[in-house]
Amino acid sequence: MKIVIIGGVAAGAKAAAKIKRLLPDSDVSIYTDDTHVSYSACGLPYYIEGNFADYTSLLVRTVEEFNASGIEVYLESKVEKILPVQQQVLVCNKKNAFLVNYDKLIIATGARPIIPNIAGVKDYKNVYTLRKIEDGIVIRERMRNSKRAVIVGSGFIGIELLEAFVKNGLFVDIIEKNDRLMPSFDSDMSELIEQRLNNYNDGTFQIHTSEIVTDILGENGFATGVKTLSGKYIPTDMVILSVGIKPNSEIARDAGIVIGETGAIRVNKHMETSIKNIYACGDCCEEKHLISGKYVWVPLGSTANKEGECAALNAAGIDTEFEGVLGSSVTRCLNTTMSMTGLTESQALEAGYSPVFAVVSKTDKVAYMPNVGEITLKVMADKFTGLLLGGQAVGSIGADKRINALATALLGHLTVQEFKRNDLTYSPPYSPTIDPLLTAMSILCKRVSKPC
Amino acid sequence: MKIVIIGGVAAGAKAAAKIKRLLPDSDVSIYTDDTHVSYSACGLPYYIEGNFADYTSLLVRTVEEFNASGIEVYLESKVEKILPVQQQVLVCNKKNAFLVNYDKLIIATGARPIIPNIAGVKDYKNVYTLRKIEDGIVIRERMRNSKRAVIVGSGFIGIELLEAFVKNGLFVDIIEKNDRLMPSFDSDMSELIEQRLNNYNDGTFQIHTSEIVTDILGENGFATGVKTLSGKYIPTDMVILSVGIKPNSEIARDAGIVIGETGAIRVNKHMETSIKNIYACGDCCEEKHLISGKYVWVPLGSTANKEGECAALNAAGIDTEFEGVLGSSVTRCLNTTMSMTGLTESQALEAGYSPVFAVVSKTDKVAYMPNVGEITLKVMADKFTGLLLGGQAVGSIGADKRINALATALLGHLTVQEFKRNDLTYSPPYSPTIDPLLTAMSILCKRVSKPC
Repeated sequence: MKIVIIGGVAAGAKAAAKIKRLLPDSDVSIYTDDTHVSYSACGLPYYIEGNFADYTSLLVRTVEEFNASGIEVYLESKVEKILPVQQQVLVCNKKNAFLVNYDKLIIATGARPIIPNIAGVKDYKNVYTLRKIEDGIVIRERMRNSKRAVIVGSGFIGIELLEAFVKNGLFVDIIEKNDRLMPSFDSDMSELIEQRLNNYNDGTFQIHTSEIVTDILGENGFATGVKTLSGKYIPTDMVILSVGIKPNSEIARDAGIVIGETGAIRVNKHMETSIKNIYACGDCCEEKHLISGKYVWVPLGSTANKEGECAALNAAGIDTEFEGVLGSSVTRCLNTTMSMTGLTESQALEAGYSPVFAVVSKTDKVAYMPNVGEITLKVMADKFTGLLLGGQAVGSIGADKRINALATALLGHLTVQEFKRNDLTYSPPYSPTIDPLLTAMSILCKRVSKPC
Repeated sequence: MKIVIIGGVAAGAKAAAKIKRLLPDSDVSIYTDDTHVSYSACGLPYYIEGNFADYTSLLVRTVEEFNASGIEVYLESKVEKILPVQQQVLVCNKKNAFLVNYDKLIIATGARPIIPNIAGVKDYKNVYTLRKIEDGIVIRERMRNSKRAVIVGSGFIGIELLEAFVKNGLFVDIIEKNDRLMPSFDSDMSELIEQRLNNYNDGTFQIHTSEIVTDILGENGFATGVKTLSGKYIPTDMVILSVGIKPNSEIARDAGIVIGETGAIRVNKHMETSIKNIYACGDCCEEKHLISGKYVWVPLGSTANKEGECAALNAAGIDTEFEGVLGSSVTRCLNTTMSMTGLTESQALEAGYSPVFAVVSKTDKVAYMPNVGEITLKVMADKFTGLLLGGQAVGSIGADKRINALATALLGHLTVQEFKRNDLTYSPPYSPTIDPLLTAMSILCKRVSKPC
């Protein structure tokens, strides 16, 4: 059996390792246009920040380790075409083009940064996106020789690089076209994120919302500033483009594989695409949302790993299902943890629910303890059934703890009436006597039709 | 309507405040033999440790605040007898004895330390138990003038005081009659607690397990050492007795109220005792375990608060149910978080389940991040149904996060097969790519009869 895997960052690498363990006699090979395989892309902002010295810490498995386990890895070898009838792929490297046969094909092509429509965006060496290891290396190097940075876009990557740059002594302008930071959060919560970050701002960064970068200006091949639609000119030593990513699904689309409305590859629970013997996993494919039942695109490293494993098991003939995602995520910026799970307010409305909310701010431990932080927690349920739909938390470390408990409740399709009975751990260093999550549920209980 | 509440630490204080808010015209009074009301007893070890300067930080509501809201508080006024037929209680203070009428009586008498059978245990001024505010004050004072302490018993209080004393420069001998510390945990997990604490031992304490203190010796009214059954003599400047607590249920028993097999007061979901118009809540009463359905006695501050509120609502005529507990708890000692929820191994067997386990040790965040800690997590399910039964975690901060997610799963009666699909938050500072909880569930899945 010959298994070909396209892409090898998280899902592809996981799939390769798993399938070789399941079928030691199979012929497993990874083709990737990347210069590295099997690495923690999520760790790149922390590498840039300087949390660890060497980028090789990000490598989960080296090429040598893959080879030693009998997996062939072809770096800088781009699969240009999938030929489903022939069960072949066309690979191009710097020197050659060649066809490779497969019995099973696993597409794990990931996603790539969106390049915004800005004049001069491709003209300068110090305009970056952050996706691959070499991006991290050059951004870190440039940062160490810079005094100012402009970050365009304030999603996860933008906000993580804000922290990295500020901690390295740069002055940062972060520019967001929406009216608030982290627009994947509900508006009230992302306004809170902005407030909190500004509380930790000792004059080292400026947040610009409702602002569009129109031009990148520079000289001698280096950007020196950006212009905005409102007429601002912001000087800089480097520009980060972090306005979002899109799935690398074109190669699948060209092969006639069904693409979902999200733009990512449609797969069933077995990670099978619409074409026989072709699987997809990781950031290039869609997921079912476990609450709404709708297809969504939530490209995250943890999900990629699970999907890679599921694709490998099914390709190896072991019937396994990946049910979907809750949209759980977490990140941090400047002493602020931001975490969410389930549906957002607009997603809930779109899915036909009648969402009601409770928002509470409480200390993360009993107030008399040292290093007390604050957590603001928003929980959401359907007004008529009480079914929990989602929640978001912003605040000190411990915000993530509440969201993981809520994610588990969503998984179990619990109602707010049921959750209110929860027996969460308590001790002064870990939570107030009544955990913020239980306080929020008590309030939410009063807003649903069915009493509790 | 005249409501009398006996006891006012957590459950009693909460009940008083709640009922007065619900029924502003009612006559609410608290009688307690304590010198304080409405305080965080759980915070006493942290007060002793020096996390905050003033014990008044522990007060949730002062007597003045109670009075201002129309609640009368009688300190050092012990209720000696309940007369259910007459609907009266007999109160004794330093000067008088008098009868008080009630329409509704709420018993919140709490629990008290067990005094072990040790020769000399009552002969010395510097032998302490820790339960009330004045205990905390005298222990803190004595600690500050001591170089050595002996702690008898290694449950929550014992282990919390170990940290407090060590951080204040004392040498501590902690003596446990069982073969392991924290015997409420499963044996493998409490062995791990001992290993971890010893890893943080820089010569400032000694753990003695399987050791019984037979004698406290001293002179001039002060203990100077203890003798053990194995023949050790351990010199000390103070002795803490922390071998456990028992419910203050005698006054209820004397009144003919049904007492459970646990020794605590039996109540129904409305916190009603077996006698009309008499409620009980807090550490003096039993709870139903939400997994086993059996009566248990799990005296904790968070539960006391919930029960106090439930008793108040029902006494005020608002039908409310307290369903029970999962036995969730957490504490810390010397960089070690210890947390558990659900049934222990022996409780699961006793309840008729066929428990199977998975134990995993993983980093608490991605290994390349700074300040990486380790968490060992044990999860348990029924072999035949896969129903999750409980779990325990020992390790760095973040152990509690996993247990809260597991508690939520227990609340929802999820199986390991269901939990395996959970979408927990991931980002390098918060967890490894696959959370320890999911890794543990994957392993556990293979040990249950029903495949996943």
